Amino acid sequence: MKFCSECAHPVTVAIPEGDNRPRYVCTQCGTIHYQNPKMVIGTIPVWEQDGELKVLLCKRAIEPRYGYWTLPAGFMENEETTGQAAMRETEEEAGANVALGELFTLLNVAHVHQVHLFYLARLLDLDYEAGVESLDVQMFAEHEIPWDDLAFPTIRTTLELFFADRRKVLEGGSYGFHGRDITKPMRAPVEPD
Amino acid sequence: MKFCSECAHPVTVAIPEGDNRPRYVCTQCGTIHYQNPKMVIGTIPVWEQDGELKVLLCKRAIEPRYGYWTLPAGFMENEETTGQAAMRETEEEAGANVALGELFTLLNVAHVHQVHLFYLARLLDLDYEAGVESLDVQMFAEHEIPWDDLAFPTIRTTLELFFADRRKVLEGGSYGFHGRDITKPMRAPVEPD
Repeated sequence: MKFCSECAHPVTVAIPEGDNRPRYVCTQCGTIHYQNPKMVIGTIPVWEQDGELKVLLCKRAIEPRYGYWTLPAGFMENEETTGQAAMRETEEEAGANVALGELFTLLNVAHVHQVHLFYLARLLDLDYEAGVESLDVQMFAEHEIPWDDLAFPTIRTTLELFFADRRKVLEGGSYGFHGRDITKPMRAPVEPD
Repeated sequence: MKFCSECAHPVTVAIPEGDNRPRYVCTQCGTIHYQNPKMVIGTIPVWEQDGELKVLLCKRAIEPRYGYWTLPAGFMENEETTGQAAMRETEEEAGANVALGELFTLLNVAHVHQVHLFYLARLLDLDYEAGVESLDVQMFAEHEIPWDDLAFPTIRTTLELFFADRRKVLEGGSYGFHGRDITKPMRAPVEPD
């Protein structure tokens, strides 16, 4: 941020009176320009048939992480709820019709000023197709998940927690809600010996 | 928003190519100024002694809703997690030291572009005191809660859900996680006959 969005005067960085954090402030009109974390919201779309469960993943057609696999997700917009954002992103990125379930993960990614939320979701049909931000959309059983080609740590964490809870569900338990803080970058590829 | 914060040129409202929503865009430098919902994060600080549970509330010293009662809460900042934001706001507004528990409510307030999160929290001592944004801080048993003088619908909803779950806890159950969409404004005062 270089200029005040209210009066076009150059902004400076200063701690406003009564505050304790540096902010972009306008010395001409007095506006304080607060900056806050953004929410990224998506789903874990599943299809279950004859006891086999598969999860729908999208291959990213945009940066960052072009070509890597992700759960359908994106930035929450004004005027919508977290649930509506989850459904919208699933439709936009995977062309998928889902019945939305409960919130499954809340993942803090503080170093990039983001909070990621993923909802459980059940695919209503198999008429999915890649949206403009996806190169491909495919269903994966647990043993088929491209663990080394996932786009973000929050995708890996959400899928790991999902399959762990899935095992509990098969033993009569239920899916829980999981909050986690993601502090490390994506796991580096294993170095050859 | 009137001017581009990158180049100071007046912004216009337009739907960018490949997008489907109107955004503030700069026709000089091409920057698209996205606007996204903000998170408001707080706690339900409780003190339990001899089987009696009390909740700490703050009387607001700032607008909106000056003089009304709230749970300690405020806007999440960049570089912090949701849990850190909850602890910070509890300390700033109520001077209270708490042990943070699980996330209890996620409340969408789409018409004001906000998502409110409240965490369970246990007061570690009674050395609380009003911060600069509070006129007063007091502990209330359930029958003492000033229901008609609460600041926001999300405070009422969180407290109602909390005391409902509390009854389950006393019967051997546990506190759950609750997601809700708040679509109606605060309940209007009852008109006299």
